[in-house]
Amino acid sequence: MSQIPTIEEIKQAAEIIKDYVHKTPVITSSTLDSFATNVLGRETKLVFKCENFQKVGAFKIRGATHAVRRLLETVPDPSLLTVVTHSSGNHAQALALAARQLGVRCQVVMPSNAPLVKKEAVKGYGAIVTECVPTLEARESTVREIIQRLEEEAAQSEMQYIVRLVPPYDHLDIVRGQGTISLELLSQAEELNRPLDIVIAPVGGGGMLSGVSVAAKNLSKDILVFGAEPTGASDAQQSFRSKTFHPSVQPKTIADGLLTSLGEITFPLILQHVDDIFTVTDQEIAKAMKLIWERLKIVVEPSSCVTLAVVLYSTEFKERIKSLAESGRPLNIGLVLSGGNVDLGACLSILSGI
Amino acid sequence: MSQIPTIEEIKQAAEIIKDYVHKTPVITSSTLDSFATNVLGRETKLVFKCENFQKVGAFKIRGATHAVRRLLETVPDPSLLTVVTHSSGNHAQALALAARQLGVRCQVVMPSNAPLVKKEAVKGYGAIVTECVPTLEARESTVREIIQRLEEEAAQSEMQYIVRLVPPYDHLDIVRGQGTISLELLSQAEELNRPLDIVIAPVGGGGMLSGVSVAAKNLSKDILVFGAEPTGASDAQQSFRSKTFHPSVQPKTIADGLLTSLGEITFPLILQHVDDIFTVTDQEIAKAMKLIWERLKIVVEPSSCVTLAVVLYSTEFKERIKSLAESGRPLNIGLVLSGGNVDLGACLSILSGI
Repeated sequence: MSQIPTIEEIKQAAEIIKDYVHKTPVITSSTLDSFATNVLGRETKLVFKCENFQKVGAFKIRGATHAVRRLLETVPDPSLLTVVTHSSGNHAQALALAARQLGVRCQVVMPSNAPLVKKEAVKGYGAIVTECVPTLEARESTVREIIQRLEEEAAQSEMQYIVRLVPPYDHLDIVRGQGTISLELLSQAEELNRPLDIVIAPVGGGGMLSGVSVAAKNLSKDILVFGAEPTGASDAQQSFRSKTFHPSVQPKTIADGLLTSLGEITFPLILQHVDDIFTVTDQEIAKAMKLIWERLKIVVEPSSCVTLAVVLYSTEFKERIKSLAESGRPLNIGLVLSGGNVDLGACLSILSGI
Repeated sequence: MSQIPTIEEIKQAAEIIKDYVHKTPVITSSTLDSFATNVLGRETKLVFKCENFQKVGAFKIRGATHAVRRLLETVPDPSLLTVVTHSSGNHAQALALAARQLGVRCQVVMPSNAPLVKKEAVKGYGAIVTECVPTLEARESTVREIIQRLEEEAAQSEMQYIVRLVPPYDHLDIVRGQGTISLELLSQAEELNRPLDIVIAPVGGGGMLSGVSVAAKNLSKDILVFGAEPTGASDAQQSFRSKTFHPSVQPKTIADGLLTSLGEITFPLILQHVDDIFTVTDQEIAKAMKLIWERLKIVVEPSSCVTLAVVLYSTEFKERIKSLAESGRPLNIGLVLSGGNVDLGACLSILSGI
């Protein structure tokens, strides 16, 4: 396979994962359409892709399932494979569930300060959880130790045990899996008579944005794909605009799924397939979250809300829209709502602070 | 038409309103299924009917649209009809939108202490809002004055203006409209291979519970229909069990859509078609709300959550389930989530108090 996922590979990924993930619904709202129309100065229709209704409450199950199924192609029996990762959040749950659904063993390294409810959820899916001190170094070294120990055990066994790391985003099979979002979103928008002119997706490590952009650009010649990022973690925008990798240094935002740096695989894909990355403040993210909860009647995490915040509050985005030629029909924008795993107490203080 | 709505009339209502209301989705959750299974001691599957995704955010648009369309059958031109009501909540918005969609004039009396956002919403749908002091007497007398004035104006006009009161629940065409929920829910549950053994719906004034119960009992011979009510507003349970009308006196509950007394039309229908009414405390409603928000990822108002609270926390309900014969397959329960119009600040303080 190439270093750039092809649309055929992403379509194949959709086929491979379809029995294990949900085809999530899209939602529309005439009220939010009118807000966007007022702000952008031209008739605008929004299509929200609800990955908060996905299994484990986030899109991560797509990539995790795809990566594990790919690994299984070379393994004679699922029970011989152990997948390993480190994660404090949605990827841990996604990999654990993917492994359980596919009959594969799973070990997850989680920082000791990860929420108890998340650790319990991962264990509930049958994965073995190892805790470590909450630093990236400790997480990576603990993963290495586990892999080394399992490989030593495998070497001493008569069984052909296989151990594989499945990283959260910087992996081609993860990118291909997340790209399946675009296949669904673009066709669902067509069914609503809202063929998309623009797709906006949140960007953290870039696994989703890269997959979504590769798929969207291949499916629709003239579509624009934008990333949405918190001002307090704007490393992807800096990297994109300077065409030079900037790591995420001391990020600070309520969008806690978007703290990570871009990866070696995702950054070049984003440079090549994304049209721009816009940033929004935490206050703007919170206002967008309130609108989504109140108007769409759905629970989404703050990281999902950067997309609507860009449409309603980014002056750079508004300028970009002004520069587009009129098409004689409404401007149709697809927004990826990445997940809905919230700490309701934390959301309370976010929403009450608006 | 009869005093007991027939299933044919309810099917006709569905046909009459279908271009003006949403067919709302149903949602399931394996986690909530397992919670219910543990509590009830037998395998249980839940089917949630999401009227929070309905137009105006609540089921009320069904009955309002049906009532207005029925009135239009005797009116030569929609613009000759004015519909009038008093309401502080969802019925006001529902009637205003139904009127706008059907080209009918609408006047709504709202108490001066109704939330500004609700008054603005009603005005936004083009209705004329008259404020009054926040007592039932003032609301009713203001409505009477408006109707009298409009009728006098009509009498002096050459045009054949017609003025009609559309009450929130105690009206056969409202009941027939709300009954359409059961038509959808029962067939959606069948499609999921979960043919319903039980339907549970919230009860306030009883417009929805009476319509839902009449329809469900006529569609499925052995189905049980239960009402769910807050302990702090248990007038419907008292009325039902004593077979004597008890008014709602000083109700106190977070489920602010369920404060009303049963009506002259809804009470006999409920007596005849409902199997029992169970109550739950505000604490139990709040716990159920947290589960629905966190697990189903949807925003519902506290009044919607009495249904899940009955399943998980009512010992009377649990006893009733124990008495049912085993069927050799899971027990399938349909739960009506009546709406999603929330004050997020109020909800989040409810949730943080658990």
